[in-house]
Amino acid sequence: MRAEIPARSGTAFLLKQGEILRVIDPEGGQVSDLLAFQQADVRETISNGRTFDYEETIRLTTGNRLWSNRSNPMLEIVEDVVGTHDFLLTPCSEATFRHFYADKPVHRGCFGNLAEALAPYGVSEDDIPVAFNIFMNVPVDSEGTIKVLPPPTAAGDFIRLLALDNLVIGLTACSAYDSCGGSFKPIHYEIEAAR
Amino acid sequence: MRAEIPARSGTAFLLKQGEILRVIDPEGGQVSDLLAFQQADVRETISNGRTFDYEETIRLTTGNRLWSNRSNPMLEIVEDVVGTHDFLLTPCSEATFRHFYADKPVHRGCFGNLAEALAPYGVSEDDIPVAFNIFMNVPVDSEGTIKVLPPPTAAGDFIRLLALDNLVIGLTACSAYDSCGGSFKPIHYEIEAAR
Repeated sequence: MRAEIPARSGTAFLLKQGEILRVIDPEGGQVSDLLAFQQADVRETISNGRTFDYEETIRLTTGNRLWSNRSNPMLEIVEDVVGTHDFLLTPCSEATFRHFYADKPVHRGCFGNLAEALAPYGVSEDDIPVAFNIFMNVPVDSEGTIKVLPPPTAAGDFIRLLALDNLVIGLTACSAYDSCGGSFKPIHYEIEAAR
Repeated sequence: MRAEIPARSGTAFLLKQGEILRVIDPEGGQVSDLLAFQQADVRETISNGRTFDYEETIRLTTGNRLWSNRSNPMLEIVEDVVGTHDFLLTPCSEATFRHFYADKPVHRGCFGNLAEALAPYGVSEDDIPVAFNIFMNVPVDSEGTIKVLPPPTAAGDFIRLLALDNLVIGLTACSAYDSCGGSFKPIHYEIEAAR
């Protein structure tokens, strides 16, 4: 069953070990910030640094795993028709809106949306790490300079992630101007049963 | 007054707003993992993701600031004679030793050294983020692949960081084989008074 995350919002749900989360960009050109926490102890969470260490790359796609701050693999990318995701940048927030979009209305961003959705699971704001930013297009040049470009997705593009533990997932339809090329769109997701 | 961190060990200390921390590689070829926490509330800590966001680069040097998970600048690099540091990778730990050096004795690594040194300040293991790895040489190629090469430092090379808040600092002389080219050496540091 496909669920919709409306534009500029977020949600949280349980994903059991063996289930597969499919995240779909229904219209194309949208980003979805993903967080994962161990259900039994939400202080264990995905870590970009541990993931870069063990996967030995900052460009994660099919076959790569997302590792936790306690060095356990939490999710494995089992299918990826896009191949462009970011694990460098933090979720947009009131502070990032003030910093990057001083002339535009402040929004609580993916950070605020994730914080509200995850609070019932015992996740506090300070426990929100760098998100795995699905479909986000963040090239790094040879000098290390970062840019944020529109996602290269076409309507219906998706990624599938296998849960390697019982997880609490946070997931958004991104709220920032740059990450989705100035447009705000929904994100769809499905949970496929464990085999 | 210059203090020494012996090879494969770590320490923690207070750094007041306006003071400057000078970290020196006395022999050349060594890495020092640095952490910073807000003294008044150690749940505020340096964040590689927020720093990459606001500084718009993954290569941090003179003029760049290290930002917190709450979007406040904590440290500013005011002098840097090396220009090669890493903010992608997590501190080496028992788990990373088992993963990368299966044929060598397991060491608690910078993670274990930092955890012990920071415990008296109320920092728990799960609160240890990605460290700013001073002098660590981690090139990222155009495909996103990461390598860990020996530091390019010569004896006496240093970096100076200005405290923008009252901070708890964790600092190590790195314990991993790859990051220091297979040799284990001390790190020196000095605290310069605020002007």
